[in-house]
Amino acid sequence: MAKAAPVSPLAPKTYPEIPPIEGVRFAVGQAGVRYADRTDVMLALFDPGTQVAGVFTRSKCPSAPVDWCRSRLEGGKARALLVNSGNANAFTGKAGKEAVKASAKLVAAAVGAPEKHVFLASTGVIGEPLDASKFDGVMDRLVTSARPDGWREAASAIMTTDTYPKLSTRVARLGEVEVRIAGIAKGAGMIAPDMATMLSFVFTDAPIAAEVLQTLLSRSVRGSFNSITVDSDTSTSDTLLLFATGAAEKRGAPWIEKASDRALADFRRALDEVLLDLAQQVVKDGEGARKFVEITVDGAENAAAAKRIALSIANSPLVKTAIAGEDANWGRVVMAVGKAGEAADRDKLAIWFGGVRVAHKGQRDPDYDEAQVSEIMKRDEIALRVDLGLGKGSARVWTCDLTKEYVAINGDYRS
Amino acid sequence: MAKAAPVSPLAPKTYPEIPPIEGVRFAVGQAGVRYADRTDVMLALFDPGTQVAGVFTRSKCPSAPVDWCRSRLEGGKARALLVNSGNANAFTGKAGKEAVKASAKLVAAAVGAPEKHVFLASTGVIGEPLDASKFDGVMDRLVTSARPDGWREAASAIMTTDTYPKLSTRVARLGEVEVRIAGIAKGAGMIAPDMATMLSFVFTDAPIAAEVLQTLLSRSVRGSFNSITVDSDTSTSDTLLLFATGAAEKRGAPWIEKASDRALADFRRALDEVLLDLAQQVVKDGEGARKFVEITVDGAENAAAAKRIALSIANSPLVKTAIAGEDANWGRVVMAVGKAGEAADRDKLAIWFGGVRVAHKGQRDPDYDEAQVSEIMKRDEIALRVDLGLGKGSARVWTCDLTKEYVAINGDYRS
Repeated sequence: MAKAAPVSPLAPKTYPEIPPIEGVRFAVGQAGVRYADRTDVMLALFDPGTQVAGVFTRSKCPSAPVDWCRSRLEGGKARALLVNSGNANAFTGKAGKEAVKASAKLVAAAVGAPEKHVFLASTGVIGEPLDASKFDGVMDRLVTSARPDGWREAASAIMTTDTYPKLSTRVARLGEVEVRIAGIAKGAGMIAPDMATMLSFVFTDAPIAAEVLQTLLSRSVRGSFNSITVDSDTSTSDTLLLFATGAAEKRGAPWIEKASDRALADFRRALDEVLLDLAQQVVKDGEGARKFVEITVDGAENAAAAKRIALSIANSPLVKTAIAGEDANWGRVVMAVGKAGEAADRDKLAIWFGGVRVAHKGQRDPDYDEAQVSEIMKRDEIALRVDLGLGKGSARVWTCDLTKEYVAINGDYRS
Repeated sequence: MAKAAPVSPLAPKTYPEIPPIEGVRFAVGQAGVRYADRTDVMLALFDPGTQVAGVFTRSKCPSAPVDWCRSRLEGGKARALLVNSGNANAFTGKAGKEAVKASAKLVAAAVGAPEKHVFLASTGVIGEPLDASKFDGVMDRLVTSARPDGWREAASAIMTTDTYPKLSTRVARLGEVEVRIAGIAKGAGMIAPDMATMLSFVFTDAPIAAEVLQTLLSRSVRGSFNSITVDSDTSTSDTLLLFATGAAEKRGAPWIEKASDRALADFRRALDEVLLDLAQQVVKDGEGARKFVEITVDGAENAAAAKRIALSIANSPLVKTAIAGEDANWGRVVMAVGKAGEAADRDKLAIWFGGVRVAHKGQRDPDYDEAQVSEIMKRDEIALRVDLGLGKGSARVWTCDLTKEYVAINGDYRS
């Protein structure tokens, strides 16, 4: 397996204190899915009436738990979420489907809820059968020990080669009442010798119907989890679930059943912030990442074109290695703009690093101060902006640099 | 600049002996475009009547020489080709266009041919103005010293951080006569601190009209230069030109003016072989490459889907680092199939490394011999095959592994 990595230099300096979300309880345990010496299973229990929404990998070869969750979302109700690390239960054929069913059955029995209200996620090696009976030995203790706090333990239990647990929380006003949103994520870590997976679970006490939650979540991921990239690779298992217990209704929060409800404005803002915070934490824990890069594209023909160009830059190995080398290499940025396939006019292009314009109107900006840009490139966080000068389309994405450590983490595990 | 790299371990063991192509003469010189101690300019001269065809980068931000060549192709005639290394004349705005015009004028005057029959290519740093007057000092000597051999010198003069010159030749029957095709290429090398560019120039004495040449070339690149990838990045300067002097007509070769002419069958075969050989040599000199990987996708819905899936595998950093780590990591192959966006059914997928099936029907193949696969992964050249089990679409592409040396070459030049 990969050597234990030190904590990413981009990790947050402190972890947020996350108070309980009424109606949610957590427990973690050691099921020994793959490793003996760590927590590897997390159970979240929800009060009856909890609503759920989700978005998943676009992979055409999704894992068995992704298939399970997708088809269980229709009902919009959740009573439990079981997540394990150590085994992704992906590319496991019939045995994978059976493991999913067995896990759901086990949780449902222990919790006293229908199987269809049980959600599942797995991360870790793929192609290896997941032995669901391992959960059997820990399930009763998980259910009885579940408690409203323990966010950090929950976030740690779902880590693979993440170097730090990822947590975020915000408060929002819903009607006259404060509601709370909190979430955990695991990111672009790798369980050798297999693939990275992004999992995130977000919880709120706001009383919002599943359909509305789904609309909010699908919109909010566009600017957060769907605007980050570490290495352009897409896991078979990416899962983001949003659970709303509705407990704040007792405190006077209005029951929301329309996505157009104006009372949602502040909740939307808070949800966006939690998802963006978690998504950025995932990037900052990108394998081998030493620099966090924000890429803004303005002046594109439209927003979709802007996003494709931004992702083309963010996924370019030549741009990413230049940033690792602390070089404001705008030539490679031009290359990445050009290969995106969207309208671009070389002679209208302008490029900034950290606010300093280095190129405009088809050539190097004669006025830029190399020493100043050189200082900017030494920072941990680098803002790169491109203006295409064509239209009003804008987009922003986040990525990290590409270092030798990335290759070591993903290629050296045999040696 | 990047440290001088040792020759790629994947380099051919010997260089082919390339006899003259009647109607083509070469000269190389030291114009001092960027470095003082190397040949950096190559001039090829063609007898009157030479036909030309070309394909170029799909970048929306092409270099000035690419713009020049594209618009000169219409006439279909060529008398000279000037190529320099050291400066790509890309993203150089108006100055770039003027440098191109000045270069063409200089060559035209020295050769005694119209400017529109002069073709140009540049590779090297981008964003720096190209000083065309540097060619002035060497032009007369280039023209007077041009001779029919000197292939290897020509291939060397256009290198950037290529670790070896790339040459290939084949003989074809056209009617009752033997004709010859020979070509040179430069590949995914990098002139620090800027971007890689692929240039290739192919020459033949076959008497083939420019329109027909264009049809042949456009078709042949699909299975060769458009089926290779080193790092998924597309240069602003990629240029492939095919020149046909027609000299073989004197020896009895038929003049070909229709692409459907049956006499072309063997020429097509030979052209495909030369382009594929050059394209594979480019991959084998991929930055930091230690392994050459052939990826075959069968059983896709159609050929286009097969190619997209094959390129998704070939461009996946996780697949490429696994191969660098000598790991037959079929899980990452599944991931790359899944993210390609084409139809795929996990439960029908089969994957082979070096002819050994490691996965089928949605799971690990229980019968495969790990020791055997482990031996296969130690080889310099690795064949990876995926069968989707859905249709009859097939494609084959070539790539290399992703090593720490790639990151060092592209990110370390500042240190």
